[in-house]
Amino acid sequence: MKKYNFSAGPAILPASVLKEAAKGVVNYQGSGLGLIELSHRGSEFSAVIEEATALMRELLELPDGYHVLWMTGGASSQFFMIPMNLLNPDETAVYIDTGTWANKAIKEAKAFGNIEVAASSKADNYNHIPKGVRISAKAKYLHITSNNTIFGTQYQRFPKSPIPVVCDMSSDMLSRPVDVRPFGLIYAGAQKNLGPAGVTTVIVREDMLGTVSRHLPSMLDYRTFSTNDSMYNTPPVFPIYVTMLTLRWLKKLGGTKAIQRRNKAKAKLLYQEIDANPMFLGTAAREDRSLMNACFVMAKGYESLEAEFLKETKENGLIGLKGHRSVGGFRASIYNAMPKKGVEALCELMRDFAVRKG
Amino acid sequence: MKKYNFSAGPAILPASVLKEAAKGVVNYQGSGLGLIELSHRGSEFSAVIEEATALMRELLELPDGYHVLWMTGGASSQFFMIPMNLLNPDETAVYIDTGTWANKAIKEAKAFGNIEVAASSKADNYNHIPKGVRISAKAKYLHITSNNTIFGTQYQRFPKSPIPVVCDMSSDMLSRPVDVRPFGLIYAGAQKNLGPAGVTTVIVREDMLGTVSRHLPSMLDYRTFSTNDSMYNTPPVFPIYVTMLTLRWLKKLGGTKAIQRRNKAKAKLLYQEIDANPMFLGTAAREDRSLMNACFVMAKGYESLEAEFLKETKENGLIGLKGHRSVGGFRASIYNAMPKKGVEALCELMRDFAVRKG
Repeated sequence: MKKYNFSAGPAILPASVLKEAAKGVVNYQGSGLGLIELSHRGSEFSAVIEEATALMRELLELPDGYHVLWMTGGASSQFFMIPMNLLNPDETAVYIDTGTWANKAIKEAKAFGNIEVAASSKADNYNHIPKGVRISAKAKYLHITSNNTIFGTQYQRFPKSPIPVVCDMSSDMLSRPVDVRPFGLIYAGAQKNLGPAGVTTVIVREDMLGTVSRHLPSMLDYRTFSTNDSMYNTPPVFPIYVTMLTLRWLKKLGGTKAIQRRNKAKAKLLYQEIDANPMFLGTAAREDRSLMNACFVMAKGYESLEAEFLKETKENGLIGLKGHRSVGGFRASIYNAMPKKGVEALCELMRDFAVRKG
Repeated sequence: MKKYNFSAGPAILPASVLKEAAKGVVNYQGSGLGLIELSHRGSEFSAVIEEATALMRELLELPDGYHVLWMTGGASSQFFMIPMNLLNPDETAVYIDTGTWANKAIKEAKAFGNIEVAASSKADNYNHIPKGVRISAKAKYLHITSNNTIFGTQYQRFPKSPIPVVCDMSSDMLSRPVDVRPFGLIYAGAQKNLGPAGVTTVIVREDMLGTVSRHLPSMLDYRTFSTNDSMYNTPPVFPIYVTMLTLRWLKKLGGTKAIQRRNKAKAKLLYQEIDANPMFLGTAAREDRSLMNACFVMAKGYESLEAEFLKETKENGLIGLKGHRSVGGFRASIYNAMPKKGVEALCELMRDFAVRKG
């Protein structure tokens, strides 16, 4: 049985990437040695990290002045590293609260400066993205979360901001074209759209750095990574390798424009089914629906069938569909690497289930 | 041609581990999905991290009260995390300076409290381990580096200390039995003896934690990892998996006592050759010679043959033997996974080279 992996992260990776990665583990490019047992200073891995960086630049269409950094610790570590590197104790940063992760970013930032939460959709269980938020030009940066994995919402248009935008793109990085120029910093844990767990990409504009007065340990200073091409210490070799392979795959596919078309088509299929099917109900505001994570529950009157439907998804090879406890129901994560056939299989089961149980 | 990998790190891994790891990348335990694309909260990875922790406990013979943490950021991140978590600004920690890495640990620690460097072998280019160092009972902890990769020295006996010892064991973790009871904290980047780059093991005794007053971001607080079984956020799945496989391999082999016998036999072979061969010279004091990294140079009068010998090692499939620039010459890293045959091949080439060029 063909399996489709709807996990929110770590998440599905292209089959061709997994195959190539496995080969590299035992015998890298016919060298007789595995990539993960070779020195990171050797020519083999140097070529890998250089290509990963070049591909990231190309796919994001990065202008000059932006650094591509390969770090560890996940987006969770960026939550404190961002204010630690960018915000002095007497300065203010503006945050928009669109869910669990935005909330954690706010909580961690508070230790480093004044944090102004300009808008929050918490009262509505984060079912939408606050709009028309006025951002103070006096603040140092605006922090947003572009896609909210748990609640299935996503900025379809980024807010207008008079100050540099700092954005957690962990769950929709490179899923669509983005004009990076308003962004001072973009970060993403790899394990959704970019690669496996264990590496975090940080894109940072040079002018954002060097403006805080506090002491920064070497490993917490973005400049340590930018001036050493992310090789100040041993980087996470395998996660970077698999990320590079995934970026190659994305480029070959046609880059962000091509993947956006595919992602839109997949999401359209799924949301059409959710809306047409009397047994299911989408939880996010329509205009803010995420193209990456579709959240839905059993419609009124059918709540008792939730466990049964979930059981059937597993029996049909559709993995990882249980919704986060904050929303309940189901969550279908349909990242870049999810083939359309996976979404079709899910829609078919939903239709079939409704007919049988309706 | 059979290749042997003498890289200082990332370093050689057991062939059986690499093979098993590659299989898991594409099809984990016949699930039809790769381990690196599955949710870290799922039963598959939970079993992996639990087994890794249990094996670490068993192989180290950890008494109760010690936590096993799986972190990222390498030993370099521990250099600042240790004083940040253990030392108040008005407290003193004692460090012994035995090389480049000890030195970096000292440099990073200075921002957090009073750092007393009780001894250093820097004046002798770190060719030995300072002995008989008196450690103040009033200090909070003593920091040492058990094995110095760059200079090829290793503590054969740990210093007597009236205060908890904090030890960087990155390059000799689990290479020999160690009585952990004097240690308050042990840390090791995986990429030498434990697994691939991308995961750092921290062993910390409960009573070491919770005594500092400064603010700790969640991801920099050891307690976040100890109370969440290293799953507060997404851990580096693949590096932990390969580490678990390597620990399994070590257990099957007989654990630390068995590997110590093998490591001693390998090191004896190599140092005997270095000492007997008129063309080569060991650089570390004999009593402090590392069982993990043997450093040697061309003997007096033969300096001009260095490049030629290095070229021949490569031609003979002996990889990664170039010494660190701080010492020059050659460095043979003969970690747990290096088979005796690899050392024999190197010794044979050294003998043969001396005959041909002598």
